[in-house]
Amino acid sequence: MPLQFADRLNNVETSAIRELFKLLGKPGIISFAGVFPDSAMFDVEGIREASNAALNQDPGAALQYGATEGFGPLREQLAQFMVQKGVSDVTPDQLIVTTGSQQALDLIGKTMISPGDKVIVEGPTFLATIQCFRLYGAELISAPVDGQGVDTDALEKLMAEHKPKFVYLIPTFGNPSGALMSAERRQRVLELAVKHQTLIVEDDPYGDLYFGEAPPPSLLAMSRQVPGSREWLVHCGSLSKVLSPGLRVGWMIAPADLLAKATMCKQFSDAHTSTFAQATAAHYLKAGRMPATLDQVRKVYAQRAKTMGDALRRELGAAVEFVQPQGGLFVWARLTGAGGKVADGNVYAKRAIEQGVAFVPGTPFFCAQPDAATFRLSFATVGEDKILEGVSRLAKAL
Amino acid sequence: MPLQFADRLNNVETSAIRELFKLLGKPGIISFAGVFPDSAMFDVEGIREASNAALNQDPGAALQYGATEGFGPLREQLAQFMVQKGVSDVTPDQLIVTTGSQQALDLIGKTMISPGDKVIVEGPTFLATIQCFRLYGAELISAPVDGQGVDTDALEKLMAEHKPKFVYLIPTFGNPSGALMSAERRQRVLELAVKHQTLIVEDDPYGDLYFGEAPPPSLLAMSRQVPGSREWLVHCGSLSKVLSPGLRVGWMIAPADLLAKATMCKQFSDAHTSTFAQATAAHYLKAGRMPATLDQVRKVYAQRAKTMGDALRRELGAAVEFVQPQGGLFVWARLTGAGGKVADGNVYAKRAIEQGVAFVPGTPFFCAQPDAATFRLSFATVGEDKILEGVSRLAKAL
Repeated sequence: MPLQFADRLNNVETSAIRELFKLLGKPGIISFAGVFPDSAMFDVEGIREASNAALNQDPGAALQYGATEGFGPLREQLAQFMVQKGVSDVTPDQLIVTTGSQQALDLIGKTMISPGDKVIVEGPTFLATIQCFRLYGAELISAPVDGQGVDTDALEKLMAEHKPKFVYLIPTFGNPSGALMSAERRQRVLELAVKHQTLIVEDDPYGDLYFGEAPPPSLLAMSRQVPGSREWLVHCGSLSKVLSPGLRVGWMIAPADLLAKATMCKQFSDAHTSTFAQATAAHYLKAGRMPATLDQVRKVYAQRAKTMGDALRRELGAAVEFVQPQGGLFVWARLTGAGGKVADGNVYAKRAIEQGVAFVPGTPFFCAQPDAATFRLSFATVGEDKILEGVSRLAKAL
Repeated sequence: MPLQFADRLNNVETSAIRELFKLLGKPGIISFAGVFPDSAMFDVEGIREASNAALNQDPGAALQYGATEGFGPLREQLAQFMVQKGVSDVTPDQLIVTTGSQQALDLIGKTMISPGDKVIVEGPTFLATIQCFRLYGAELISAPVDGQGVDTDALEKLMAEHKPKFVYLIPTFGNPSGALMSAERRQRVLELAVKHQTLIVEDDPYGDLYFGEAPPPSLLAMSRQVPGSREWLVHCGSLSKVLSPGLRVGWMIAPADLLAKATMCKQFSDAHTSTFAQATAAHYLKAGRMPATLDQVRKVYAQRAKTMGDALRRELGAAVEFVQPQGGLFVWARLTGAGGKVADGNVYAKRAIEQGVAFVPGTPFFCAQPDAATFRLSFATVGEDKILEGVSRLAKAL
C-alpha cells in the first residue's frame, strides 16, 4: 500500500519548469533562466568580518536558541535599514525575522488562509508564491499587470467581486514582470485596502535594486499618507537579493495581531531563523557596509540590463516587446508574432535551448489565464559578452 | 473589523506555559525550566574555523541560494555521521537538510496530515510537536509511556483502533520523559509498522547524549533486522543539542516518495536552510571535531544528571518518583502525594517560583489525559552548586 499524503498536495503542480531545467546542464548553454543574484558580487570580506565579530563578541547568543521573533540586535538593525528605505516609524518589535522572505509568505499563508479562501495575486507573479498559497488551500485570482504595475481599476473590481482574504503584490521590479508600480497606483492600492478592509501584502525583495532614480516609496512608506491603511498592510523584506541569499534572512512587518499569530506559527515551523546567520547579518548592517554594497550591485545590474535591452531591440526588433527595466533582475518580454515569427513562449524556449540559450517561458507565472506569448530573461548572473552572445542566439531561435 | 485568521489557528493553545515563563525574570531564580543545551559548552573555536573555511574555500556556494534538499557537502557529512550512529546504509540522497528538526516535524505535518487525520504521540511528548501537528488539523491520540519508553501493547491496540496516519515517537531520552525505549520494544515498534502498514516517525535529537553505555540502536539502525520496516520509517536528527541550536541544522531520512513530497513542501516553506550555516556545519563535521565535542557534553551532562538525581532522592525522598536519566537533558518526575505533600505539578510550580526555583509542570506535554502530578526538570544549563541549591528550594516548596 503506498503512503497516503495530505490532500493539500493535490493543489500544487511543480513540473512545469522542471523539464526545462533538466536541459540546462547541456554544455556551453548561456542561461537567462536564473533567479539568483550574482555571487561574484557578494561582499565576502564584509560577511567574514561580521560572522567573526558575532562569534568573538557574544558566541553564546550567536549559537544558542533564540527568540522566535528574531535576534534582538538584528531587529534593531533592520528597523534602522527600513529608515534608509524611507520608512521612519517602524520599531524593532513591529517586525519579525523570517527564514528568507519565502518563509514570510509561508507564515502569511499559514496564518491567514483557510481552504477555499480567495487571494488576489498579480498575473504574472512569483511562482513560489502561487504554490505556497495553494498548499494552504487558497483559490487564486489573477489581477492584470502592465508596465505601471497592477491595473488598479481591475483590482478594485476583483476585490469587490471576490472579497479576497488578502491581495499579494510585488510593486517594485517584481519577479517576473520587472514592473514598477506608479506612485498614483500605490496610493490607490492603499485607499482600496481601507475602503474594502482588505489586507495587502507587499513583497519587496527588489526595491533597493534601482538603476537610476529611486522608485516611488514602498506601500509601507506611503501608508502614512493614507489614514488607516497601515492596519491593512503587511510588508516583506529580504537581504537575499542585495547581500546574500545563503544567509536566509528576511523580515515581515505587519499589524500587531497578525504578527503575533505569525510568530506562533513560526515557532512550530522552525522555532527561529538561524541565530548564527542573524547575528552575522546584524554585525554586517551595524558595520555600515550596506550602502557601498548597494551602490555596487545597482551599478553592475544597471549595465547588464542596458546591454540586454539594447541587444534585444537591435537583434529581435519587432518580434518582441518589453518595458526596459528600471531595476531588479529581469526583463519580462512578449513575443508579438510579427513577421510570422514564433509567438508561443514554450515553443520558443525549446528552440532557444537548441541554439544554446535558456530562459523561462511565462506561462507558469500566471495562476490563471496565462499569456503564452510571454517569457522571462534574467540578466543578473551573465557578463556583458555572454549577454550579447545569448541574445544573438535568441535571435537565431526566433 | 478585525482580521479573520485561518481556521487552523483555532486548533492550538499556547498560553499554558507562557504565564509561568513570565515569572522566570524574577531576580535570583534558579531555572530548571529550560530546553536549551549549555552555551558554555559550544565549541566556538571549531565553529569559527569551520565558518571561515566555508567562506575561504567556496564563498559563492556558502552565500548563494542552494538546493532545497540541502547543501551537497553537508548531506555527505551527515550520511557519514549516521554511520557513526550505527546506520551504515544511508546515502546522501536519502536525507534532506531541515531548518532544525522542528522543520522536519513541520514538513511531516504538511506532507502527511489532512484535517481530521489521526496521529499517535507519546503521553507525554514534545510540546512543539503537539502544536505543530494540530496546526495541520491532526487529531492526536496519546499512547502511554513508562521508563522503558512507549507501552507497545497499548500502542498496538491504539494503532488497530485508530488507524493513524503515523505514529510519532522520541525513543531515546525524549523531551520531556527522558525515557529510554528498550531494544525489545524498538523491535516491536518496527514489527507493528510493517504489520499495520503505518508510518513511524522517530525523532532523535538526544540519542548522542548518553551518560554511560550507548543506548540501543535507533529504530533506523534496527530497521535492517525487520524486513520491510524501512519503508515505514522516518528519522529526524539534529545538531542542536550536540553542537549548536543557533545553526538550525537538522535532517530527515525518509522513504523516497515522502522525501520528495517533503522537499517540495520545503521549497515553499523557506526555499532551503541557510547555506552559510550548512557549509559551516559541513566543515565542522569534516574537520573531525565532533567525537571530542560529544565526549565533553556527555561528561558534563552526566555529572549534572547525577548531582540532580542524588539531590532529589536525598531532599525530596518519597514525595517524588522518577527514573534516573541515562542520557538527555531532563528529569521527568512525579509527585506521589506521600505524607500529604503537594500532588499537583501546576500548584507545585507556583510554590516553587515563590521559593526561587522554576520548572515546567507536566500537563502541557500531554495531548490528552494529562497526568497532573508530573513535572520536568532540566539539569542542562545549571552548574552543580546551583543544582544543589535549586533542589533544596524544591524541597522547601513541597
